[in-house]
Amino acid sequence: METKPTEISSSKMFGGYNKRFKHFSPTLGCSMTFHIYFPPSPSPSHKFPVLYWLSGLTCSDENFIIKSGAQRAASSEGIALIAPDTSPRGLNVEGEADSWDFGIGAGFYLNATQDKWKNWQMYDYVVKELPKLLSDNFPQLETSKASIFGHSMGGHGALTIYLRNLDKYKSASAFAPIANPINCAWGQKAFTNYLGGNKSDWEDYDATCLITKFRDVRATILIDQGEDDKFLQDQLLPHKFEEACRNANVPLLLRFQPGYDHSYYFIATFIDDHIRHHAQALRLN
Amino acid sequence: METKPTEISSSKMFGGYNKRFKHFSPTLGCSMTFHIYFPPSPSPSHKFPVLYWLSGLTCSDENFIIKSGAQRAASSEGIALIAPDTSPRGLNVEGEADSWDFGIGAGFYLNATQDKWKNWQMYDYVVKELPKLLSDNFPQLETSKASIFGHSMGGHGALTIYLRNLDKYKSASAFAPIANPINCAWGQKAFTNYLGGNKSDWEDYDATCLITKFRDVRATILIDQGEDDKFLQDQLLPHKFEEACRNANVPLLLRFQPGYDHSYYFIATFIDDHIRHHAQALRLN
Repeated sequence: METKPTEISSSKMFGGYNKRFKHFSPTLGCSMTFHIYFPPSPSPSHKFPVLYWLSGLTCSDENFIIKSGAQRAASSEGIALIAPDTSPRGLNVEGEADSWDFGIGAGFYLNATQDKWKNWQMYDYVVKELPKLLSDNFPQLETSKASIFGHSMGGHGALTIYLRNLDKYKSASAFAPIANPINCAWGQKAFTNYLGGNKSDWEDYDATCLITKFRDVRATILIDQGEDDKFLQDQLLPHKFEEACRNANVPLLLRFQPGYDHSYYFIATFIDDHIRHHAQALRLN
Repeated sequence: METKPTEISSSKMFGGYNKRFKHFSPTLGCSMTFHIYFPPSPSPSHKFPVLYWLSGLTCSDENFIIKSGAQRAASSEGIALIAPDTSPRGLNVEGEADSWDFGIGAGFYLNATQDKWKNWQMYDYVVKELPKLLSDNFPQLETSKASIFGHSMGGHGALTIYLRNLDKYKSASAFAPIANPINCAWGQKAFTNYLGGNKSDWEDYDATCLITKFRDVRATILIDQGEDDKFLQDQLLPHKFEEACRNANVPLLLRFQPGYDHSYYFIATFIDDHIRHHAQALRLN
């Protein structure tokens, strides 16, 4: 089984290239795909800082690359974009495809502890395996300069991974993140199944809980949230996160955007601001 | 049957709105969908010029809206984008879905003369029915100020419709258009089936043939063509169109873009140039 990534597609965009790769992931025990957007290179030896994008429920590594328009600003800022998939695939675990908010396409960027879902180790895949794989195989990437952002379930992933690895990521941002999953139905369903019934185990994967533990946040966290997002009140709970940040003195810029929904049209509208936010942090550090 | 358009979805983007509508088309004899992107309005009485986008083979009215990123420049330039579907649907004509380059998703923006395909009247739908429908139902659109562009089969549509209706459209542009369909396999298959075996009937739907008839082109035609487009040599034939323009003294800016393929990644890279091209023509006229 080939752990080295194989290029399976390549398309030029804004002077750089969207490239899709396939590899066998020992962490997840299955074959995985991911996308890299390489900006145009000023010289053969140039190295790009990397910005990880974590997608939301039902997405693969393709949605962000196809819909966000992020490549325009990534090209001009000289930042490589890394878009992994959202869960293991092809393992045929009973029930893995029964619902859109659990199992396939819904890895929640955690390490499952329950035996049935033992392959669902997306936290380790994103934080450990993927950066090593990039570092080993793509000399044009400066993987020690990394930031992370995401949408919805991927916003939850970006915030929690950032807070637990302040040494690894220079900055974090999110679009409509699931900001307090232990208190919403999506999170409770996923965490019960992946992590078991002991709720204290859930807090390691809840951004609002983590804020109180990791106060040494250097860069301001940027969050955009559409006011017409139908998941805002019941699932996303950004006010809980805002309150926790205020109490912990963590710098947060939470912007409510009137009229915007939960879609990639919302993301595309504000993606340039997020890329610039990370470009600044990556340049400074 | 409701000929008045019904709004079926709405998403805010770049301060304006992507809205999808459904209506019964008397021209095509079936229900059709289309998208409008409305830019943010400076005042309740403001009217926007319109820019029609014609999509390529296999597309619906959604691809351009989801993938092109055109709304960013349309928002700042104050131009409404109109994206119709690419063929009638739901008529259950025998064989309509047998191939991806003919029938459903492949209307070629012509009026079929062969009885079996009598509903395939996409030329009249785009040139006559749709502008009237927009004018009657959307007071915020200034439909007398219109331009047209498209991709591949839709680039063919934009060029042919423009050349035959220089009074109706201020400007035209295209990405990787099928520029001389009577001389490529896609065009020959479609035209034989829709228009019959008399090749002189085909010339009304061939941009390279039409150039010699309609020399009174006011605005420069802009075409972008990826050099790594796998359809370039056999299907698209932009050099034939370039030669015809040169012979007829029609102003053409044909840009070959090294490394780019036939995808929406190519379109997204150069879409701003096209929007500005049309904005200039719409402002001047």
